[in-house]
Amino acid sequence: MCSRPEPPEPLRRVAVVGGTHGNEMSGVCLARYWLRAPGELQRPSFSAVPVLANPAATAACRRYVDCDLNRAFTSAFLTARAHPDDPYEVTRARELNQLLGPKASGQAFDFVLDLHNTTASMGTCLVAESSHDVFAMHLCHHLQLQSPELPCRVFLYQLPGEESYSVHSVAKSGLGLELGPQPQGVLRADLLARMRALVAAALDFIQLFNQASHTGTAFPAFEMEAYRKVSSVDFPRTETGDLAGTVHPQLQTQGQLASR
Amino acid sequence: MCSRPEPPEPLRRVAVVGGTHGNEMSGVCLARYWLRAPGELQRPSFSAVPVLANPAATAACRRYVDCDLNRAFTSAFLTARAHPDDPYEVTRARELNQLLGPKASGQAFDFVLDLHNTTASMGTCLVAESSHDVFAMHLCHHLQLQSPELPCRVFLYQLPGEESYSVHSVAKSGLGLELGPQPQGVLRADLLARMRALVAAALDFIQLFNQASHTGTAFPAFEMEAYRKVSSVDFPRTETGDLAGTVHPQLQTQGQLASR
Repeated sequence: MCSRPEPPEPLRRVAVVGGTHGNEMSGVCLARYWLRAPGELQRPSFSAVPVLANPAATAACRRYVDCDLNRAFTSAFLTARAHPDDPYEVTRARELNQLLGPKASGQAFDFVLDLHNTTASMGTCLVAESSHDVFAMHLCHHLQLQSPELPCRVFLYQLPGEESYSVHSVAKSGLGLELGPQPQGVLRADLLARMRALVAAALDFIQLFNQASHTGTAFPAFEMEAYRKVSSVDFPRTETGDLAGTVHPQLQTQGQLASR
Repeated sequence: MCSRPEPPEPLRRVAVVGGTHGNEMSGVCLARYWLRAPGELQRPSFSAVPVLANPAATAACRRYVDCDLNRAFTSAFLTARAHPDDPYEVTRARELNQLLGPKASGQAFDFVLDLHNTTASMGTCLVAESSHDVFAMHLCHHLQLQSPELPCRVFLYQLPGEESYSVHSVAKSGLGLELGPQPQGVLRADLLARMRALVAAALDFIQLFNQASHTGTAFPAFEMEAYRKVSSVDFPRTETGDLAGTVHPQLQTQGQLASR
């Protein structure tokens, strides 16, 4: 990583999004809290906007109602003519595109932070579109330095030639925070506190960046390890699609421990 | 506990029920497995019938579709005239009552074992209707003796004056197995193996009982600790019903450890 963060303009329009998946409770609870008490999202140079991305799925405590909202921000969905039979999440993606985008336009938000949980024991994972999002890469580097004792890996989700589709892809720059393990629909205080601290650290970094862009200070180059998807490995299944195997008991929930 | 098990007749009609709650995966997966390969449920004196209680909720990987199936076995639901607008689970409760009951009749199954999971870290919990189900009490005692190193508490769910409402209440005797912690919709191999071993031990005990009833052998009296519901304590909430508190990180998942 040898480039400097771009764009050099300060980031003024920032959103923190929870409840993109309605049963991932750290982001759901934090978004609800900040909608009542947004002071925690304010910094001297900007005020981040809290957003509850999928209210219907959140009310039902389900990942989604009709289809995965975090796959719905493609140009095909966003530009198609609205129809009464559209899936709920496609309609909601268009609303969020109006609020935070339009995607790939000059009017789009400068930065969107999207909060997720996983049942996997992967600690903290920072989900960026690609290494071309230089601001997100600098933010990841900053977050890793904040808590060097915790696993905090960077995952680049976009495959070569693939269109971006996530909530945070509507903004000029964005990052997903994925914390686990946490059961779906369950709120763990330790992950809630960790998510809250990560968001605070991210907003502090944006403030730092805005100050630096004001004074013309550059952020130093760095190298960073990042992960990409190589392939998917499904569970063994029966002919009818039922599970025919499980994670071995000696491996279950060992991912995080092994990485320390 | 000073009475002998009743009825003294051998138990021939036995069912093992999974998927009463469609996202509690130990029972869902075991029921699906036994429906393909029921040999594991056979004993010399009987063959237990595997039942997937809530196929629609299981397909959707949700606790239920319209209402909680495990509260639907009341006489009000079971005897009311069927209507096209009935909740799915009320219709399904009537079907299961035909299959395993009718409740409180001489034609009802002798014993139903109902398999559940919880996200709570409570180890193994044996859920019986009341201490009046003497056969279930003897079975609980037997299961506790099988694994004295594991927490295996007995919970009597029926409140004074309350009608029974669970799946296993349609049979002459019944028991729920509640294993945790396991996230909803997730299958852990350790809990799957534990559930499978508990079911095998329960069927072995029924076989033992049938042999004893054949020879006129009595089971010795015993004393046993059991738990009842005293009251419910909800999370602190905001005026709109959102969570305003969590389990303290130092207490989260400590229930099982503290009991050892």
